[in-house]
Amino acid sequence: MNLKKRIKKLKQIKSKLYKKDFLLTWEKSPEDLEMILEVADILKQLRDENISPKVFASGLAVSIFRDNSTRTRFSYASAANLLGLEVQDMDEKKSQVAHGETVRETANMISFLTDVIGIRDDMYLGEGHKYMLEVAEALDEGYKEGVLPNRPGIVNLQCDMDHPTQSMADLLHLKKEFGSLENLKGKKLVMSWAYSPSYGKPMSVPQGIIGLLSRYGMDIELAYPEGYELIPEIVEIAKKNAKASGGSFTISHSMKDAVKDADIVYPKSWAPYHIMQKRTELLKKGDTAGLDALEKSCLAENAKFKDWEYDEEKMKSTKKGKALYMHCLPADITDVSCKEGEVAATTFEQYRIKTYHEAGFKPYIIAAMMFTNQFKNPAKMLNKILKKGRKRKGM
Amino acid sequence: MNLKKRIKKLKQIKSKLYKKDFLLTWEKSPEDLEMILEVADILKQLRDENISPKVFASGLAVSIFRDNSTRTRFSYASAANLLGLEVQDMDEKKSQVAHGETVRETANMISFLTDVIGIRDDMYLGEGHKYMLEVAEALDEGYKEGVLPNRPGIVNLQCDMDHPTQSMADLLHLKKEFGSLENLKGKKLVMSWAYSPSYGKPMSVPQGIIGLLSRYGMDIELAYPEGYELIPEIVEIAKKNAKASGGSFTISHSMKDAVKDADIVYPKSWAPYHIMQKRTELLKKGDTAGLDALEKSCLAENAKFKDWEYDEEKMKSTKKGKALYMHCLPADITDVSCKEGEVAATTFEQYRIKTYHEAGFKPYIIAAMMFTNQFKNPAKMLNKILKKGRKRKGM
Amino acid sequence: MNLKKRIKKLKQIKSKLYKKDFLLTWEKSPEDLEMILEVADILKQLRDENISPKVFASGLAVSIFRDNSTRTRFSYASAANLLGLEVQDMDEKKSQVAHGETVRETANMISFLTDVIGIRDDMYLGEGHKYMLEVAEALDEGYKEGVLPNRPGIVNLQCDMDHPTQSMADLLHLKKEFGSLENLKGKKLVMSWAYSPSYGKPMSVPQGIIGLLSRYGMDIELAYPEGYELIPEIVEIAKKNAKASGGSFTISHSMKDAVKDADIVYPKSWAPYHIMQKRTELLKKGDTAGLDALEKSCLAENAKFKDWEYDEEKMKSTKKGKALYMHCLPADITDVSCKEGEVAATTFEQYRIKTYHEAGFKPYIIAAMMFTNQFKNPAKMLNKILKKGRKRKGM
Repeated sequence: MNLKKRIKKLKQIKSKLYKKDFLLTWEKSPEDLEMILEVADILKQLRDENISPKVFASGLAVSIFRDNSTRTRFSYASAANLLGLEVQDMDEKKSQVAHGETVRETANMISFLTDVIGIRDDMYLGEGHKYMLEVAEALDEGYKEGVLPNRPGIVNLQCDMDHPTQSMADLLHLKKEFGSLENLKGKKLVMSWAYSPSYGKPMSVPQGIIGLLSRYGMDIELAYPEGYELIPEIVEIAKKNAKASGGSFTISHSMKDAVKDADIVYPKSWAPYHIMQKRTELLKKGDTAGLDALEKSCLAENAKFKDWEYDEEKMKSTKKGKALYMHCLPADITDVSCKEGEVAATTFEQYRIKTYHEAGFKPYIIAAMMFTNQFKNPAKMLNKILKKGRKRKGM
Repeated sequence: MNLKKRIKKLKQIKSKLYKKDFLLTWEKSPEDLEMILEVADILKQLRDENISPKVFASGLAVSIFRDNSTRTRFSYASAANLLGLEVQDMDEKKSQVAHGETVRETANMISFLTDVIGIRDDMYLGEGHKYMLEVAEALDEGYKEGVLPNRPGIVNLQCDMDHPTQSMADLLHLKKEFGSLENLKGKKLVMSWAYSPSYGKPMSVPQGIIGLLSRYGMDIELAYPEGYELIPEIVEIAKKNAKASGGSFTISHSMKDAVKDADIVYPKSWAPYHIMQKRTELLKKGDTAGLDALEKSCLAENAKFKDWEYDEEKMKSTKKGKALYMHCLPADITDVSCKEGEVAATTFEQYRIKTYHEAGFKPYIIAAMMFTNQFKNPAKMLNKILKKGRKRKGM
Repeated sequence: MNLKKRIKKLKQIKSKLYKKDFLLTWEKSPEDLEMILEVADILKQLRDENISPKVFASGLAVSIFRDNSTRTRFSYASAANLLGLEVQDMDEKKSQVAHGETVRETANMISFLTDVIGIRDDMYLGEGHKYMLEVAEALDEGYKEGVLPNRPGIVNLQCDMDHPTQSMADLLHLKKEFGSLENLKGKKLVMSWAYSPSYGKPMSVPQGIIGLLSRYGMDIELAYPEGYELIPEIVEIAKKNAKASGGSFTISHSMKDAVKDADIVYPKSWAPYHIMQKRTELLKKGDTAGLDALEKSCLAENAKFKDWEYDEEKMKSTKKGKALYMHCLPADITDVSCKEGEVAATTFEQYRIKTYHEAGFKPYIIAAMMFTNQFKNPAKMLNKILKKGRKRKGM
């Protein structure tokens, strides 16, 4: 569709994203989510057609990464740069945060000329989301008191509960693969635990997936070995979502059985809820010996489920033997990145390029979150961009 | 006042900031300082009115931080970004400086396309300012010899002697709080040492404060426990300044007595001059045991002055019980960031938002230093910015 | 010459740089190299005349440094910034590369909105160039499969074989010093090993120099103590180049004799080929004890050749006693950066400023590599820049 028409259609979507942080997808309305998907895709098309959507002459996009990251870091930087913002990393090793500064104060100190703050904080259960709310509250106060000329918007780049930039990129990928959100109705999606030689992978990806994709009328099956539960509250949300959207939500305990007739499979390792609780306690206490012991026992437990690998045989049992394979990357690929992992090399290889496409939506999803947070009328601003038609590259 | 008028008034200020590094406020004329304050405030108003003062299409703003920093780092990045420069961090861990390169050479190597260099070097007594002069000399030579197309301006982001971006931001804050620089005449300002559970805090903040604020006819009282002297030469400057401006400068040894009837209080910990001298020697020798012993004895000494906390009782004794509390942040707040600190929690809380406002001027002060260093006729360039009226955000 | 004329003359150069990575100078045609030199110099003149060649409204220039670097890092950042790209550092310590990600995947993940990737990888013999080819292949696939909207160009910022941004900057320096490339014919250039108190310096600089400068009809003499060989294949390339260009290429084993009557001298330490092979093996095995032993024996071997210092006496024997001294910097200067080094302090001092000028071409060489990789018709785009005449600084 041409850009003019697409932008015009945007006007019909009644979203309420302006000046609202994007923390959890389940706090957002269907219109909000649709708006993000559409704006993301329009921004992508603009760039593909060499039109620059640079709407900031200056401004900072602060990033706070409390965990290592390649792809989210680059996605965030790309999104900020596309819109004209400069990334400024709040590196806690370089900064004074470690020296007893309060979140409240720091949040203001880094925000005087800041438009967006992206935060990744997924290490401690019960902490990441809470931390974002604390930052949000501090920014609200700073703005109210005239300390900050604008209220910077917060983008959740992964917390202990949700990973909305990932799940929204995944949703846009599905929309593209199946033609529309409508077409997702009745499709079977299996979010399955998978074996990995590491332990302690965050739950935010599977939680993000079931929390979001349950809203589109799909039959969601969450499969994991007994004991590998996710946060119960989020599972409840998924159940409710599924029901409300005319889909279903079931939990089962065999990857092999679950993937039968699936249209979409998402095999991915995570550490179970009760382990994450224990781990968080030990981390807070700084109990190294306890952490080592926990890791050992977890790895031993994991090792019982090495057959939770998505392989050729399992793939054959999916719908027409070719369910769409998804992954947030990097996957633990058997014989490639590890000896025994989440997915067989030959199986992964068939969908490798598709997982790259999947990941490629993330910069635009983040840009759309920034854009809709900052502009009350996204359609109007996008129209201006189109009219101005400034080249992204060249003159 | 509207921007056009403000900019017009600028023309009457005969400053000589063009192509001059900003290292120490006491090297600058009253007109120079007035120009910085005015340009900073105009840049702030421009941005608040969504007009972009981006005057560089490209160019680097190099930052050299030899000590950790959050707020100065972000202030510098914000200032550079506002004017269109990109921060490039000269991280000595990432670079070859440690491998025997001379300052002279490095200064040139990082400056081929650089417009500004911000330096923070406050660790070693007698080193920070000296280092900046060395860099300046190298840049002078490089420019003279045609190695550098421009002579990048140096902004002192804190040295062993002065912290001009802090003290100038503080001055702008005072100007706003009291209505004008004129109104500061006759006001009593107390720069007081305060207890902190850490030792070795730089003297550059109190030195910067007495070196600058003594120029505006105030009655400055510098209070500290006996033995906690600042660099004598800078105290002499403050005395001379005070006299010349029709104010006064006294030294006393009780926070409790000093703050009586004060209009403004600035309670802040620092390590005394003779300790800093000893510490610098030990640091240079790499004498870890010596440093540990010094720290221990200093902390024991400090502990004698835990009553040097600014609290409710002391505040009550100030002018009308509500002297303006100032701090460069982060403050050591009793029961918040430490057990016993520089200021009581309830006292700090009453002025917390004001300290945020105080800090909020720093990015603009730095931007003004960059701007006046780079443009011979700031009024003319500001007029062009206003006329062009390019939006900072939006299109 | 004025810019209009210079740009017009560009049209006659039939280069094939568009969409081609710049990895090794010996893969490039004479026209390719001429184009780079010319575009670099035109970009420099544009900036010197305060015209901004910013041709990207947004876009990332990724940098991957697998070794410390100051000057190349700043040169790369300056080049990217000049053209409008934002540097995003792929810091392996901050990223997940260490955790088993394949090059193929990462190359795509960092490239969704990326226009250029600069890579420095000179530590392991047989690895750096290979790594760049792997990245290139991954980008080719990503582009072909529609994952990447553009194919980012790769700029070799130093590998185990070549250091093209250095050697091209050196060539531009020589062109300026001698008036033209034509004038280099018949000149004697000595690339000589020199003593340094460190060991393990990469061979890419001397290899880059003999591989490139042998193409301009000079008499190249490569001098080193017996046993300090470079990679044989590259020496062969230099021999062939020299012959084809009407010059000569000889190898000798005395710095003292070699520099006699030289027009240009390039005294620089490196670790010999067979040592680098051994070292690479040990590094791969993580054999620390072996590495220590190797270092010890190498330093002992090096110490036999302390007279390989370029000093006043040797300089006197060069053409008219004033051969042009070159160095990639930082040099090991006797009594300045070390006790005994590559060059005597007084000798270096006479050419110090010239080595700064030499280094000053690097940002423009890199910018020219980016520019010619991205624009099919560089003359046309440079004309647009000139016509538009947007100020680099000011309004």
